[in-house]
Amino acid sequence: MSVTAAQGFVASGVAAGLKSTGARDVALVVNTGPERVAAGVFTSNRVVAAPVTWSRQVLVDSRVDAVVLNSGGANAATGPDGFLDTHRTAEHVATVLQARGSDVSPGDVAVCSTGLIGVRLPMDALLAGVDDAAASLSAEGGDDAALAIMTTDTVPKTAVAARDGWVVGGMAKGAGMLAPGLATMLCVITTDASVSAERADAALRAATRVTFDRVDSDGCMSTNDTVILLASGATGIVPAPGELEEALTEVCATLARGLVADAEGASHDVAVTVAGATTEAAAEAVARAITRSNLFKAAIFGNDPNWGRIISAAGTVPEEVAPFDAANLDVTVNGVQVCRASGVGEDRSLVDLSGREVLITLDLNAGDASATVWTNDLTHDYVHENSAYSS
Amino acid sequence: MSVTAAQGFVASGVAAGLKSTGARDVALVVNTGPERVAAGVFTSNRVVAAPVTWSRQVLVDSRVDAVVLNSGGANAATGPDGFLDTHRTAEHVATVLQARGSDVSPGDVAVCSTGLIGVRLPMDALLAGVDDAAASLSAEGGDDAALAIMTTDTVPKTAVAARDGWVVGGMAKGAGMLAPGLATMLCVITTDASVSAERADAALRAATRVTFDRVDSDGCMSTNDTVILLASGATGIVPAPGELEEALTEVCATLARGLVADAEGASHDVAVTVAGATTEAAAEAVARAITRSNLFKAAIFGNDPNWGRIISAAGTVPEEVAPFDAANLDVTVNGVQVCRASGVGEDRSLVDLSGREVLITLDLNAGDASATVWTNDLTHDYVHENSAYSS
Repeated sequence: MSVTAAQGFVASGVAAGLKSTGARDVALVVNTGPERVAAGVFTSNRVVAAPVTWSRQVLVDSRVDAVVLNSGGANAATGPDGFLDTHRTAEHVATVLQARGSDVSPGDVAVCSTGLIGVRLPMDALLAGVDDAAASLSAEGGDDAALAIMTTDTVPKTAVAARDGWVVGGMAKGAGMLAPGLATMLCVITTDASVSAERADAALRAATRVTFDRVDSDGCMSTNDTVILLASGATGIVPAPGELEEALTEVCATLARGLVADAEGASHDVAVTVAGATTEAAAEAVARAITRSNLFKAAIFGNDPNWGRIISAAGTVPEEVAPFDAANLDVTVNGVQVCRASGVGEDRSLVDLSGREVLITLDLNAGDASATVWTNDLTHDYVHENSAYSS
Repeated sequence: MSVTAAQGFVASGVAAGLKSTGARDVALVVNTGPERVAAGVFTSNRVVAAPVTWSRQVLVDSRVDAVVLNSGGANAATGPDGFLDTHRTAEHVATVLQARGSDVSPGDVAVCSTGLIGVRLPMDALLAGVDDAAASLSAEGGDDAALAIMTTDTVPKTAVAARDGWVVGGMAKGAGMLAPGLATMLCVITTDASVSAERADAALRAATRVTFDRVDSDGCMSTNDTVILLASGATGIVPAPGELEEALTEVCATLARGLVADAEGASHDVAVTVAGATTEAAAEAVARAITRSNLFKAAIFGNDPNWGRIISAAGTVPEEVAPFDAANLDVTVNGVQVCRASGVGEDRSLVDLSGREVLITLDLNAGDASATVWTNDLTHDYVHENSAYSS
């Protein structure tokens, strides 16, 4: 059900010819109210796509009436003309929805695009797709919308968290250019709870910080990453303190885990947990250094519990970022402590890496804080997918 | 001729059985004087191998009489026992050389090791190899020494810069775990010029900063990287101001370029030049962000001049590190300006990437500083070499 699991939303996903495959490529999500509160988190890349520049502006007043999303083109590095294309798309969505009786203004239409960088969108096809998407809007359209935002994704990613009378639903896309410090993909989340703009913003940031921001599949930060939360207030229910954040985190965690599971060419999903750190930030920094190591990631592909590459990557983190004794590190791979006090531990041949999921714990023995970052292995298929095709 | 191109040095390289292939694996370089000035640069990784800990201490008084190097084992993550192995190796070198009439003390013997992390060295074989190496020392032994330090290298790396009556010679090894902020491999450089300790140190740091430190093949920083400069003063010639630095830079640049050309599994050597930066540090930071992008590196493997991935990687560098207008970036790939003002430039099909060497220039249009970082493409063979075998 994706984004239409929550009351107060209609959605659709149609094929407009942007994808050469003829698959669905334009999605529309409309908040039918009565409230139209919104919050957004965007890429921290300085090179941002036109739709990110546009949508950031749309979010300034914490109101979004509709989100239009397209695959088949990122509209990034397309200059002022590309920005005009985004503007025109939002105008067109407002016009079409107004013709259908909605009081939507262009300035409240967020736009998301994904696909190849440096190519203009085929605007005739896109605008015709918007017409079609508006005509197809329904309270059961969430799944079609989730299909329409896929690029190299092999499966749509959706999640729903049902609470006492209210619901959070979401959809996301992303299979490459997945990296930290930001949202790392396109994601629309809806709720029929009644929440203030401040609460929506704080809850969304708290949820993404420990979910999407902890995914580092390939270290590459996209120009288009966007997470938008829309709240309709259709149930009239005001969640208790902490409840919204908790439900959002559940939905974001499911979607984030889905991104890792579907990452381009990956054969393992790897959770790197750094424990015994002085602070959560220190733990995260060390975990991220490990998840960025190509040698580590290639070893996991080869089912090799190469703890030397793990502590070697940890050692690249400056002391001021993460204080620890480099001679006192413990590493556990899928339950086997292969490294003890930075030296040889259990026999590495005891480690079973044949499954898809790999759990690694590095204990810094320096404190009580911990953090987990998810990544993937570095595989032949990753190289193939990212060298044989432009994206 | 490698390290024995300079007068006042003898060297050797022998097979001690540390490598399963039976190839040479123990090298010895001895400074026969009359001067014994030395300088060293080591990995900035906090997880360092025992020989790095030892050799740093040896370099404190700027005197090194001999360097013993072994492949077939990094002696990293081997705990206190591993350090004792290094200490014992240095003691043995001193004893053997003393027996041959040299006034070498163990505290002036630097030790370098390279190979698998987390495995103890076979000391009996290594010490027997030292005996053999000492017996084989000669003024023509530089090439044998260069062979003995190879691991996954396919060719030995040597370089010589001849000046007016004096010479700088060097050898290096390294084909993986090549990354910045440090020396990134094992390297011994000799000169028969007469230089002070301060001058040797300053010149070595200046030379490595713009050569080895500008190689970022795979983003992975080793635990063992070491560059040692030995000066014998055998010619009695004191280089003019700047001359030593210039000759050292030439030798280091040749060796660094050789490392890139022989990087594990690479099919392209890629020079990423960032121009128009406010400072050299800003240019280097942006260049490094690009050379760390797996998507960029995979695109180069696919002969795809994917400038979108280049400016996307540039955009991840914080504004305070490298000020530039993200909407005004120009990218040239092998002479074709494929991106102009962060938008589409010349037709990307005009770019010829069929050769081994790829020259990329990103102009930030923000100042006059520039920097070049060398990297390699991300290939199937890289994944294969680093997943199928432990290292």
